[in-house]
Amino acid sequence: MAGQEEYDYREMWGSLGMDVEAHDGLLAAVGQMYGDMFLTQGNRPKSTSYLDFVASNIHSGRIRELVEGREAGDPKKVVGSFCLYVPEEIISAAGAVEVGLCAGAEWAPEEAEKLVPRNTCPLIKGFMGFKLASVCPYIETADLVVGENTCDGKKKAYEEFGKLKDTFVMDVPHVRNEDTRQQWRNEVKRLAGRIEELTGQKITEESLRAAIKLANQKRLALKRLDQTRAADPVPISGLDCLLTIQAAFMDDSVRLTGAINDMAQECEARVEAGEGVAPKGAKRILYTGTPMAVPNWKLFNIIEKSGAVVVGEECCTGSRYYKDLVPEDGATIDDMLNDIADRYLNIQCAIFTPNDGRKEDVLRMARELNADGIIDCSLQFCTLYDMEATGMELAARDAGIPYMHISTGYSADDEGQLKTRIEAFLEML
Amino acid sequence: MAGQEEYDYREMWGSLGMDVEAHDGLLAAVGQMYGDMFLTQGNRPKSTSYLDFVASNIHSGRIRELVEGREAGDPKKVVGSFCLYVPEEIISAAGAVEVGLCAGAEWAPEEAEKLVPRNTCPLIKGFMGFKLASVCPYIETADLVVGENTCDGKKKAYEEFGKLKDTFVMDVPHVRNEDTRQQWRNEVKRLAGRIEELTGQKITEESLRAAIKLANQKRLALKRLDQTRAADPVPISGLDCLLTIQAAFMDDSVRLTGAINDMAQECEARVEAGEGVAPKGAKRILYTGTPMAVPNWKLFNIIEKSGAVVVGEECCTGSRYYKDLVPEDGATIDDMLNDIADRYLNIQCAIFTPNDGRKEDVLRMARELNADGIIDCSLQFCTLYDMEATGMELAARDAGIPYMHISTGYSADDEGQLKTRIEAFLEML
Ligand code: SF4
Ligand code: SF4
Ligand code: SF4
Ligand code: SF4
Repeated sequence: MAGQEEYDYREMWGSLGMDVEAHDGLLAAVGQMYGDMFLTQGNRPKSTSYLDFVASNIHSGRIRELVEGREAGDPKKVVGSFCLYVPEEIISAAGAVEVGLCAGAEWAPEEAEKLVPRNTCPLIKGFMGFKLASVCPYIETADLVVGENTCDGKKKAYEEFGKLKDTFVMDVPHVRNEDTRQQWRNEVKRLAGRIEELTGQKITEESLRAAIKLANQKRLALKRLDQTRAADPVPISGLDCLLTIQAAFMDDSVRLTGAINDMAQECEARVEAGEGVAPKGAKRILYTGTPMAVPNWKLFNIIEKSGAVVVGEECCTGSRYYKDLVPEDGATIDDMLNDIADRYLNIQCAIFTPNDGRKEDVLRMARELNADGIIDCSLQFCTLYDMEATGMELAARDAGIPYMHISTGYSADDEGQLKTRIEAFLEML
Repeated sequence: MAGQEEYDYREMWGSLGMDVEAHDGLLAAVGQMYGDMFLTQGNRPKSTSYLDFVASNIHSGRIRELVEGREAGDPKKVVGSFCLYVPEEIISAAGAVEVGLCAGAEWAPEEAEKLVPRNTCPLIKGFMGFKLASVCPYIETADLVVGENTCDGKKKAYEEFGKLKDTFVMDVPHVRNEDTRQQWRNEVKRLAGRIEELTGQKITEESLRAAIKLANQKRLALKRLDQTRAADPVPISGLDCLLTIQAAFMDDSVRLTGAINDMAQECEARVEAGEGVAPKGAKRILYTGTPMAVPNWKLFNIIEKSGAVVVGEECCTGSRYYKDLVPEDGATIDDMLNDIADRYLNIQCAIFTPNDGRKEDVLRMARELNADGIIDCSLQFCTLYDMEATGMELAARDAGIPYMHISTGYSADDEGQLKTRIEAFLEML
């Protein structure tokens, strides 16, 4: 890894076409939040120093790696995505690397609102604003962006985003049946062709099998870490686990997997020793809902600063990212591509109807992780997750687990109100 | 048709399970609006007396026909739908009749908001409220409801609606390619099977061909009426044309087609005679946007009471309903089903990406109908149409046609504000 001192990152950002001064402001704001929310946590596992490294490296050293890697031809290209439905195995097997572009902060909302309505989910408004204001080094580094027909907002936003940046849109089904399975398999192969065209590198049986293994290793490490969170006291905070997944969308997979295994190992030892990040008996929350992109740590911070602890996340920046592996024994490229497609089609996203698997996952996780309550949160104006809250509440009630639904955006304006509601909920548990 | 005097409609509504008193309130409100908006129009074609008949008959005599028809076995069943994507030919070929269930008024919003979020498009909140409050005779008469995976809101609302009423959901594609065409053809056949099961009547080559012809006759009559609106002065108001299409979702097809041909004939004579519903030179507006269900006449009323006239509607309660025919020469049932599927897949709805055909249709209609300006309106919180407004505005600007976007709900609260904005727009033309 490149030494951080000797290198002129501001020059690098400028050469990526970024607005360096606006970006300084973004970095300062995120740094401040990181200090306030993460560094104030008591009794963190030592191995979370990796997360502090990620937080400081993510817009600098990591981008340098990507840029220099591309110059050296390994990985050849950078592919940005906004959704768990875009299979990373295919991108890496063709010699590129996938990075997450979801935005967890509001930026240039007035600019964004020229292209998307005011009543748009903050994640969408965020990435439009990041692009329009040229403050995201991942968007600017990406050679290609892969969008997906998931929610109404993203589907239409890509029509505008695609005018600003080369964008390939995948058609994700909204129901699961034989027709849509076949269609999705074809769509995954269409992506494979597009990435091969981008990198000029064919996917081979070897490269695809290696890519599957690489992604599975990462998932296994995350599952291992996840399992330690069933213990009371819980060895690691929800904030740190959330950031671990957020890091997975940006950092190098091998480095990340090693670091997660280190965290898991330390957490296993802590469980053994009865050592926790929160006192034994702290109220245990299972999170479910929309994904949380960096630096959207608001809700977890409120929950944990109120004395409770988040012990699991049923969401795309949580268990959906790592719970299912891709079989490693596909005989041919085609078999492996089908296996990949099928694994991804099983992600329990609210774009699907019906989407009962999500409820089952939430109840199972609540049981396995000994959760005292469920907090279901949707980003403001996210019709899909707002609407699923109705059925989720019933399912939780039937299972006898206290449940609370929250709808919130990226602004800090409602923090006081959220704190009051969450404290009242925790009281009740 | 049954005489209206001798029959006890309140008893009929009660026997359908409706809340008769609440329904009295709804009828009175709609009757008042109809009087204020339609009956105050000057110089209407005489043949619009059909529309007055529809307005008075729609919750009474027409429902009686459906109920008595069902008892007599013709049509055997009533099938409700919310979207232009549900092919009426298939429903009628299997011995049932399709009726539109879209709600154009807010009803029982507090009840509806227990199942759908406050930030939901009024059409969705409306039909949920109508169902929960038991005030819609069409919902209550329907033996089956056919939903569709179109927008996020409807897709998820059907999960809740389906708990209250037998609902079959069709999976509508969001992109057009060979895979989705095949999938949609299969989906149309799945609907055919479901309706056959409901009625116990098989679709035959004869019944399907007759159903195709019946729907085409209706479309041809509407196209004929539409063409007269290119004249200046325009022979018929936008309000009356909107209600004509709204009637098409509820009234008997044969009666309706006859009445539309009568209107078209009278309008042709008026054009010949230079007679108009508005003075020659009145500002001519092309409407595009979300559909308008009965009694959502607010916007058209404001435009026309301001002295302009709506000369065309690019929307599902407009040209999309009638512009394309289904070929009548399909050799087999399968051919005809495929023709039907393909015709419907070509509806230019904002759920598709890209959806450039809509822009082309709008510009073509603006030219053909000699429109002075375009008003693009989306129902509040409709992400899809709100987002398409961005591209529509550019397309209109490039074509040199004045354009205005409006987002509004069903409440009368913003009428003053809309009137001001629309008058300012009309001034500019
Ligand atoms: S919540 Fe759904 S649309 Fe959003 S990232 Fe996850 S899978 Fe994609
Ligand atoms: S949070 Fe909801 S509205 Fe926002 S991008 Fe995800 S699915 Fe779409
Ligand atoms: S606008 Fe689209 S979703 Fe709505 S009725 Fe028309 S085709 Fe269906
Ligand atoms: S107006 Fe928009 S949000 Fe409302 S039902 Fe139609 S497509 Fe859905």
